[in-house]
Amino acid sequence: MTESAPIITLTTDFGLSDHYVAAMKGVLLSRATSARIVDISHEVRPQAITQAVFVTQCAWPFFPAGTVHIAVVDPGVGTDRHAIAMETPSGWCVGPDNGILSSALPDEARPERAGTAPLPPGLQAFAIMNPAHMLQPVSATFHARDIFAPAAAFLAKGGAARELGEGLSGVVMLPPLRALPDGDSGMCGQVLHIDRFGNLITDIREADLPGLPFVLQIGEREVRGPVATYAAAQGLATIPGSSGYLEVAMTDGSAAVVLGAEVGTQVRLRP
Amino acid sequence: MTESAPIITLTTDFGLSDHYVAAMKGVLLSRATSARIVDISHEVRPQAITQAVFVTQCAWPFFPAGTVHIAVVDPGVGTDRHAIAMETPSGWCVGPDNGILSSALPDEARPERAGTAPLPPGLQAFAIMNPAHMLQPVSATFHARDIFAPAAAFLAKGGAARELGEGLSGVVMLPPLRALPDGDSGMCGQVLHIDRFGNLITDIREADLPGLPFVLQIGEREVRGPVATYAAAQGLATIPGSSGYLEVAMTDGSAAVVLGAEVGTQVRLRP
Amino acid sequence: MTESAPIITLTTDFGLSDHYVAAMKGVLLSRATSARIVDISHEVRPQAITQAVFVTQCAWPFFPAGTVHIAVVDPGVGTDRHAIAMETPSGWCVGPDNGILSSALPDEARPERAGTAPLPPGLQAFAIMNPAHMLQPVSATFHARDIFAPAAAFLAKGGAARELGEGLSGVVMLPPLRALPDGDSGMCGQVLHIDRFGNLITDIREADLPGLPFVLQIGEREVRGPVATYAAAQGLATIPGSSGYLEVAMTDGSAAVVLGAEVGTQVRLRP
Repeated sequence: MTESAPIITLTTDFGLSDHYVAAMKGVLLSRATSARIVDISHEVRPQAITQAVFVTQCAWPFFPAGTVHIAVVDPGVGTDRHAIAMETPSGWCVGPDNGILSSALPDEARPERAGTAPLPPGLQAFAIMNPAHMLQPVSATFHARDIFAPAAAFLAKGGAARELGEGLSGVVMLPPLRALPDGDSGMCGQVLHIDRFGNLITDIREADLPGLPFVLQIGEREVRGPVATYAAAQGLATIPGSSGYLEVAMTDGSAAVVLGAEVGTQVRLRP
Repeated sequence: MTESAPIITLTTDFGLSDHYVAAMKGVLLSRATSARIVDISHEVRPQAITQAVFVTQCAWPFFPAGTVHIAVVDPGVGTDRHAIAMETPSGWCVGPDNGILSSALPDEARPERAGTAPLPPGLQAFAIMNPAHMLQPVSATFHARDIFAPAAAFLAKGGAARELGEGLSGVVMLPPLRALPDGDSGMCGQVLHIDRFGNLITDIREADLPGLPFVLQIGEREVRGPVATYAAAQGLATIPGSSGYLEVAMTDGSAAVVLGAEVGTQVRLRP
Repeated sequence: MTESAPIITLTTDFGLSDHYVAAMKGVLLSRATSARIVDISHEVRPQAITQAVFVTQCAWPFFPAGTVHIAVVDPGVGTDRHAIAMETPSGWCVGPDNGILSSALPDEARPERAGTAPLPPGLQAFAIMNPAHMLQPVSATFHARDIFAPAAAFLAKGGAARELGEGLSGVVMLPPLRALPDGDSGMCGQVLHIDRFGNLITDIREADLPGLPFVLQIGEREVRGPVATYAAAQGLATIPGSSGYLEVAMTDGSAAVVLGAEVGTQVRLRP
């Protein structure tokens, strides 16, 4: 796929204190000796697959074509869930078949509810089954090191995915991260993510915003906006964020703290 | 500037949990395909420009000539503050024009109070204005991804900075991080930084220390010293630190906790 | 040792907020310009040498031969403890002579109690003494930047270790991380590590496990097992972990929190 110095990105819930990420990197560099490894995030909350989908959706599109992306949040490690490699327009994605690779798929292809869904035309996915491309012996608790890293290294070197295992007609996908229409021209959604600054990133897409102005209701509070910049918020305000979603931000403070909001807190927008 | 595998460093207040740093890296690797990216720190406290100046002052000088340094702590993102690229003896620095690049400038060039000051002779700075070297569309809230990363990639590949925008005669600079004389041979300063070990790094420069011995007063406590090594502190002691500043350290403990000190806590030194 | 793009790994208790790791990387890239630097962990608890040994034991073996490993947890920095470079079957290890490099040595070579022990046949170690291969002036508090990084860069470029300083016949080593037999077919050990998921990694090696089934006693609680996967734990269970040790895990929860366990908490296994 790439001739020299392929890029491999990593997204996990492993944190950076333990040896888990480093062991993966050792395996990658042992097998794809020229690979350049980029950490997306290892601070996904333990087992929070949806958060991993949000983070990868906001980061993967900025990487060059041909990048190999590994994403591992894997409560089912060692069970009979598949390990998969999926070819997408932007490169290969490798991880457990639990929906974590969903952001690599176009919104139109994703189902309304989480579950196995057919692959859209032109995309391929393979179950990683071939022990020759695994670290032996394969543990039952650390497939990131023993299965996903070796498979990603193999693909990064240009290996043929069909050597990894059988083709799949469908994979587990999560629905698109987007709020739904609510009444005439309102929307009902939730807080998708809270960033380091305490900004609330909602699942209301900018593309779906009604005519201005509008009010966002979160708990008992109404937040006005939108404003154009964080500095202009002058207290709480909504703002079209850099990830394509409406955010709630606060100048010189944390909107999350002031509003007592959490991931999943409901938000309602009305003109 | 560099022919192959240029080095680009990153200093931000973005943290490593969110996608922000990863999106920057994707942009950098898409545009400067051979770049090697080094994280300085992403744990600068939100909006703490002075902390970023301290961290970069302690790290940037150790990088090879030709390195491109990005530093982004940017409460004014999207407002009319300039985005700048500044050429320094050690390489290019890219960031908002809010003083965050101050450590790249010699102490003599820096003003007594934060504000716009003339560039010292031989240094150049440019306002980054050219949309051709930005990620389009440019967001109002994430210039690190949309403006600073593309500009840094352009410079890392040897692009001419004047293509980015107009030359500037002055940029915003912070004063040097240093304590002032206090009375006859004393000094009055503050805690600049508290490191992971709880060491207090003051802004009293070793070069400014009076004849030994001396006493450092911090709150109600007097700390003796200096000692030569952390192991020799045997409790609290002052110690000439590795960053050129006097530190307060404690063997097997945290000086910050024991003294209840914070960044900004006043310290007074007298012989 | 390696012709091009040598790999240098870093394990420290420096954290990632401060400038310490970045300054090391600047020195490494200034002196070994093509080096690829991989972070193992910088979140070792301050001064916790044994934790560093555990982390490196779980990560170093996965890196390619020829990798140079730096490990620095160094309460004695600036004292008369040696700075050492040790050649091992898998590459060079560089750090203070306080036992932190122990995981590079085979279990058979390691003593029953921490202390200076003779090097096993075929391995070499050198005291790093040559000021020509140090960053000048050498600080008394940051040898990672001033001594270990320059030495590692020198070795990564293929420099001859004997140029660094005199050969050593013995180095400080910690005993192997393993529980001891207890009674007829039981074992008595402790919690070695608690990972981000709250899994307790004990020092009971899988290779030493008695015939199944067994019970693990930790405090007042008895934990049954082993199970094969985290998902199968269905509450608390023991599980053979990916690091070669018996773990205590909990499905959808933290075993550490539920059991109130810490690093060092005693565990007893009996059939």
